[in-house]
Amino acid sequence: MSPRTPRIGAWFIGARGSVATTATVGTLALRAGLAPSDGCVTELPPVAAAGLPALTGIVTGGHEIGEGSLPKRAEELAAGGVFPVALARALCAELAEADARIRPGTAPGGETQRAAARRIQDDLTAFRDRHGLDEVVVVDVSSTEPPAAETPELTSLDRLEEALDRGESPLPASSLYAYAAFRAGCPVVAFTPSPGPALPAVAELARRAGLPWAGSDGKTGETLLKSALAPMFAHRALAVRSWASVNLLGGGDGRTLADPAAAESKLRTKGQGLETILGHPVDGPMHIDYVADLGDWKTAWDHVSFEGFLGTRMSLQFTWNGCDSALAAPLVLDLVRLTARAKQAGRSGPQAPLGFFFKNPAGTEQHDLGEQWRALVDWCAELAAEGTGAADGTGDGDGTGDGDGQGHRDGTGAGA
Amino acid sequence: MSPRTPRIGAWFIGARGSVATTATVGTLALRAGLAPSDGCVTELPPVAAAGLPALTGIVTGGHEIGEGSLPKRAEELAAGGVFPVALARALCAELAEADARIRPGTAPGGETQRAAARRIQDDLTAFRDRHGLDEVVVVDVSSTEPPAAETPELTSLDRLEEALDRGESPLPASSLYAYAAFRAGCPVVAFTPSPGPALPAVAELARRAGLPWAGSDGKTGETLLKSALAPMFAHRALAVRSWASVNLLGGGDGRTLADPAAAESKLRTKGQGLETILGHPVDGPMHIDYVADLGDWKTAWDHVSFEGFLGTRMSLQFTWNGCDSALAAPLVLDLVRLTARAKQAGRSGPQAPLGFFFKNPAGTEQHDLGEQWRALVDWCAELAAEGTGAADGTGDGDGTGDGDGQGHRDGTGAGA
Amino acid sequence: MSPRTPRIGAWFIGARGSVATTATVGTLALRAGLAPSDGCVTELPPVAAAGLPALTGIVTGGHEIGEGSLPKRAEELAAGGVFPVALARALCAELAEADARIRPGTAPGGETQRAAARRIQDDLTAFRDRHGLDEVVVVDVSSTEPPAAETPELTSLDRLEEALDRGESPLPASSLYAYAAFRAGCPVVAFTPSPGPALPAVAELARRAGLPWAGSDGKTGETLLKSALAPMFAHRALAVRSWASVNLLGGGDGRTLADPAAAESKLRTKGQGLETILGHPVDGPMHIDYVADLGDWKTAWDHVSFEGFLGTRMSLQFTWNGCDSALAAPLVLDLVRLTARAKQAGRSGPQAPLGFFFKNPAGTEQHDLGEQWRALVDWCAELAAEGTGAADGTGDGDGTGDGDGQGHRDGTGAGA
Amino acid sequence: MSPRTPRIGAWFIGARGSVATTATVGTLALRAGLAPSDGCVTELPPVAAAGLPALTGIVTGGHEIGEGSLPKRAEELAAGGVFPVALARALCAELAEADARIRPGTAPGGETQRAAARRIQDDLTAFRDRHGLDEVVVVDVSSTEPPAAETPELTSLDRLEEALDRGESPLPASSLYAYAAFRAGCPVVAFTPSPGPALPAVAELARRAGLPWAGSDGKTGETLLKSALAPMFAHRALAVRSWASVNLLGGGDGRTLADPAAAESKLRTKGQGLETILGHPVDGPMHIDYVADLGDWKTAWDHVSFEGFLGTRMSLQFTWNGCDSALAAPLVLDLVRLTARAKQAGRSGPQAPLGFFFKNPAGTEQHDLGEQWRALVDWCAELAAEGTGAADGTGDGDGTGDGDGQGHRDGTGAGA
Repeated sequence: MSPRTPRIGAWFIGARGSVATTATVGTLALRAGLAPSDGCVTELPPVAAAGLPALTGIVTGGHEIGEGSLPKRAEELAAGGVFPVALARALCAELAEADARIRPGTAPGGETQRAAARRIQDDLTAFRDRHGLDEVVVVDVSSTEPPAAETPELTSLDRLEEALDRGESPLPASSLYAYAAFRAGCPVVAFTPSPGPALPAVAELARRAGLPWAGSDGKTGETLLKSALAPMFAHRALAVRSWASVNLLGGGDGRTLADPAAAESKLRTKGQGLETILGHPVDGPMHIDYVADLGDWKTAWDHVSFEGFLGTRMSLQFTWNGCDSALAAPLVLDLVRLTARAKQAGRSGPQAPLGFFFKNPAGTEQHDLGEQWRALVDWCAELAAEGTGAADGTGDGDGTGDGDGQGHRDGTGAGA
Repeated sequence: MSPRTPRIGAWFIGARGSVATTATVGTLALRAGLAPSDGCVTELPPVAAAGLPALTGIVTGGHEIGEGSLPKRAEELAAGGVFPVALARALCAELAEADARIRPGTAPGGETQRAAARRIQDDLTAFRDRHGLDEVVVVDVSSTEPPAAETPELTSLDRLEEALDRGESPLPASSLYAYAAFRAGCPVVAFTPSPGPALPAVAELARRAGLPWAGSDGKTGETLLKSALAPMFAHRALAVRSWASVNLLGGGDGRTLADPAAAESKLRTKGQGLETILGHPVDGPMHIDYVADLGDWKTAWDHVSFEGFLGTRMSLQFTWNGCDSALAAPLVLDLVRLTARAKQAGRSGPQAPLGFFFKNPAGTEQHDLGEQWRALVDWCAELAAEGTGAADGTGDGDGTGDGDGQGHRDGTGAGA
Repeated sequence: MSPRTPRIGAWFIGARGSVATTATVGTLALRAGLAPSDGCVTELPPVAAAGLPALTGIVTGGHEIGEGSLPKRAEELAAGGVFPVALARALCAELAEADARIRPGTAPGGETQRAAARRIQDDLTAFRDRHGLDEVVVVDVSSTEPPAAETPELTSLDRLEEALDRGESPLPASSLYAYAAFRAGCPVVAFTPSPGPALPAVAELARRAGLPWAGSDGKTGETLLKSALAPMFAHRALAVRSWASVNLLGGGDGRTLADPAAAESKLRTKGQGLETILGHPVDGPMHIDYVADLGDWKTAWDHVSFEGFLGTRMSLQFTWNGCDSALAAPLVLDLVRLTARAKQAGRSGPQAPLGFFFKNPAGTEQHDLGEQWRALVDWCAELAAEGTGAADGTGDGDGTGDGDGQGHRDGTGAGA
Repeated sequence: MSPRTPRIGAWFIGARGSVATTATVGTLALRAGLAPSDGCVTELPPVAAAGLPALTGIVTGGHEIGEGSLPKRAEELAAGGVFPVALARALCAELAEADARIRPGTAPGGETQRAAARRIQDDLTAFRDRHGLDEVVVVDVSSTEPPAAETPELTSLDRLEEALDRGESPLPASSLYAYAAFRAGCPVVAFTPSPGPALPAVAELARRAGLPWAGSDGKTGETLLKSALAPMFAHRALAVRSWASVNLLGGGDGRTLADPAAAESKLRTKGQGLETILGHPVDGPMHIDYVADLGDWKTAWDHVSFEGFLGTRMSLQFTWNGCDSALAAPLVLDLVRLTARAKQAGRSGPQAPLGFFFKNPAGTEQHDLGEQWRALVDWCAELAAEGTGAADGTGDGDGTGDGDGQGHRDGTGAGA
């Protein structure tokens, strides 16, 4: 019997948002041969070596509470320069099909969280069955939520279940989706700083179910640069005296972060890496500003003041002009492939070797981009050696996440 | 008998230049407790672990063909903001003493190169004996020379010796100093892009004499940043379409590089790292401009245009405002300690693990700063394990580089 | 009989180049009500006050030696982000019509310059007659030429005519077009640094024919900024010590300027304004680099080092990211309206009050942007007071430039 | 009888602050011939033409509530790079003399404002008498205060006097000093955004007393640039869509502005000019951040997004690296000369032609730097024509501001 490439699904929470729309356009463009895979880390040889499900075989779906349609959202994003107008038009029919796979999300107040979780689970199972998918990965690319309070039912799975049984709705939305995903046997990718699977009670569920997850908060722009540059200062023994950061961003992301409560989540995850790498607190303001006219684009300016030999004061400034959706979308597809592979290889819990992709890497304190890259590559080599992936064509023909039988291998060892 | 810290000498070619003067001020300031060791890589724990000779024990000397004096040069540099005026004044007497250890350099035409080499050797031996030094490291921090032609006598040690015997003077000055240094049993640090010890005939001498050397062209500013940032683009699969570089610099370095022949050496070493890291040629101009009013400071601007997912075009710019002498001086001291240690540990030839410090690393093609850092740290751990360094206090009490007996261990394996 | 708005023609030399194509798209878009007049100086009240021919009434034509078509060029420019793709598509039919009005340009060697001039004249007359135009303004937006030599036949109109009669071809192409334009009674706009109408023999023809012209070299980007910023330093008594300029540009303009001979014209006109405003020579390199991947966009970086009270050294940097065609096109339309109006008002020779638009303003040494603006506004007020323009609807019903009868009013007085 | 140059005094509120100390060092350095007058607008010929009191003849004094001494403050500022260390040392004795002319300022609660005002008046009179000064100008360079409330006693001079008579203390400190200054017949310069002489009740006193004043908030850095650049956008019909501003500053000024209440005054004066010049509200954040390690230096980054022809979106960024004290000090001396001259010429009330120097120009809405320069130059020419200044040596030999007899000429006409 000839080996078969595993088919995987990417299920987006926020399925008509900028990132999900761009990722959906991307999968369709790649499948149609209309675009190269620039920006996809998993196509680089040392990562592809892990034996990953095919990039062109990803089927998309998701939950969404907003109006609109994928073809229309794609038109808007193309007009804003995120990808060519011609691409949006060429893929109009396929986008309409993808749009039909999107299901209504859950909004506060409409149903109990127990009921909502069941409905989400059913949606995931139906999606898997209808499309004959080996794995479905749930990816949160919805709007950022404020940090969650630390109540007892959010820190213990048993207490959480009891609360849900009592008809209570204690979970932040991102964690409700993660809860339902794990219940449905799906790996989870937390691409925003929202609590999601990192909430202790939900993380406990992942461990018990033997399911892997990755997070949190995709590292796509200014923080990416920080994690590439800060090690330079540290390793050259240059004393960073202040590091000021300004982010101007438009679009939906900017609007959400104009709300101080939501911005708090983001600023937390943005700030910690720098101090971890440098080994000391660093002075300097960090601003996230909503500037409507920037659309889907972001401009960040950083000013670093540092001291060298004999107290000489020097400075570095950089300006980053990037399109967040275009930077995030390929990473989302990378993470879908990698977490699907992690599940097949029996990994569970937070996947530290995927810290390369995140501002706030779960399961590790490593923020140095070079070290994160090495951890990722080492992990991929390890998976290649285990030989259960797509490259050798065996798959596991099951994909339902029988975590109990496989023990707890969460890969944190590689993260240093 | 109680263990003894090895005493080492740093012998500068260009001993009253900006870098040598700043390094000299630095050793004196560190010894007097007037300055911290910011900017010294060898004081970071994973590097210090190698068991290095003390930073405060370095005695300086050197050759110089120019006029002036160290106290006066120090005043000028302090006025230009390289270090505090108060420091130059406080160390005036010590600088005058250091100045007295500087010997006249060799200029073209005055004597045969055979005679000049002997004179240089004698200067080095006298310096070592007078100050009871265990090792003397020769560091080239003089003005950049044009690239050397590839004549037969420069590619074979035997032919070189014959030419010198015939009274010819085929060597570029930097290589003449390196030749004499190796003859005197001294390790060499090539901190400029001049040919120096990298000239095949001279490199052959180092191998035969079992002596280590490190080079070429200290990586202190814009190229340092490139080697920190380029891996980010590579590992994120972002396609760099152009990378433009502009360097505005004043001072002696700027003046030298205003000469296109000298600039050619510099542009060569600056350009190659980027393409090596990215794996493909990169479009974009690279300028080095002399702007007198900038004094000892350099401002560099780089503009990187790159393409992400679905062809989205984005950009990164950075501005670096640095003081080259203040950045270079501590690295020079680091390299003196590390090459002295390498010699004690029996290493010979180009020291690839020291590639971290150079634009054009000898003995390796590795330009990725993170990988270079790891190679350096691994090498230091290896030296620590061998246990012959200052940390365990044994020294070798000899320091004459008995390379023949130890075989050829040049550490290139660690570079990868 | 009710007054009539004068109808004017814009005749582009280089009619399928980026600037002419964008200007053509612009006139069509404005007429169709598909775009606002952002970027058009002549729509600002104090300039519009001059009583100008309507922006929406401009008919375009031109000469071109290159292949291609306006609809195709417009598609390419839209893909490069110069204007929306939707606009190029919506105007496809009108662009094809405009393309049909383009005539073959003259290339060296094909015909004598006397014959070429007659052919160009005939083309201009035919264009005017066919479309019932009151004025036709010839605008040079073709590739930059090297500076012209100063031969006798280029410095005197009589000698030039003799040379042409002898079958010689002494004129640079830009000046040949300007010569033919003046012979056909058309005002000329020199939007490039090429010699064009500024060549003494040709400028003499304009004076004799009583025809106005404007030039040279549209001030659209970095030089515009310089002329806005340099007065700040001058008026605040801040001593500018160096001003470094780097221009990265792609597209046809970049390719032309990669040729050092052509770049010389550009660098000449770019450099002089700064020194005129500051009143002294200024150190610092000026680079124009061709970076193919930037397409129709230009990124310029300037670094200004200046000294304040008690010798304190400070700096200003700016980065300009502009689309040259989008910046130039509305100015071209402005100049068409203004020179047509100047002709109707009997102005002849170089129009100093239009220096606001140029790097190398003809007829004045004034480079300070604020002063240029005031000179423009004053001139418009003067024209308004004279009351012969479109605003009062009289026109002159003739438009053939009977310079002899009108005396010599070239407006240079207003520039100072 | 030979004419005499008027002798003038500069009386600083905040006399040991960075700006006052730098200005004091400056007057001493200029008098001693140790520094040129770079940065002094009043030395430019069209301004000097007004016939101003000599720059080298200014005697300094002032009020201060803080500790320390001028020689020590000067040492600190020199160490921070504001001016050369050698200058501070060379002027040590003169600085000690100047320090002895500083009197204790008034702090809330210690005395009634009526008593404080009398004491301040006495200090001013004593200063004038002791040094034989023709004019004493009071300059507020103390810390920024929050905006003042609009109570009845602050909007009418009569009510204010009644409140003071009742022993109340309704005035903000800056206005108390201005009140006392006017009572003592001194012109006032409001170099900070504090209410000072702009408070309606105090401004009324100036008018009644026939005394001139100038303000508010010295335009030294980022706002200066805005007022030079914004007219370029306006006059080129480029639609500014957003303008983001970030100011990083250390030193005392930064610390004060870290207090949101004080920052409010500053942000108000910074923001309004841009909208006035552009003629419409502009989106974009404006931040003032205290970054301790920047010392007396300020780095500002501005990002301007604008739209040109056919909706093309472009951007301009600038980075300003300036030393606020070094930029402010010469302007303070300029304003002392100009307001002294204004008083001699019988001007009273807010001097609109001095708007060139201020973020929030009193008596005019003109923010365009070029127009402000022209208004200043015109005013100087007017004063020159009146011929009562220092240039013709007559002075008025009195200097007590007999405003009543001269009528009300406040110069607002020139501001337009």
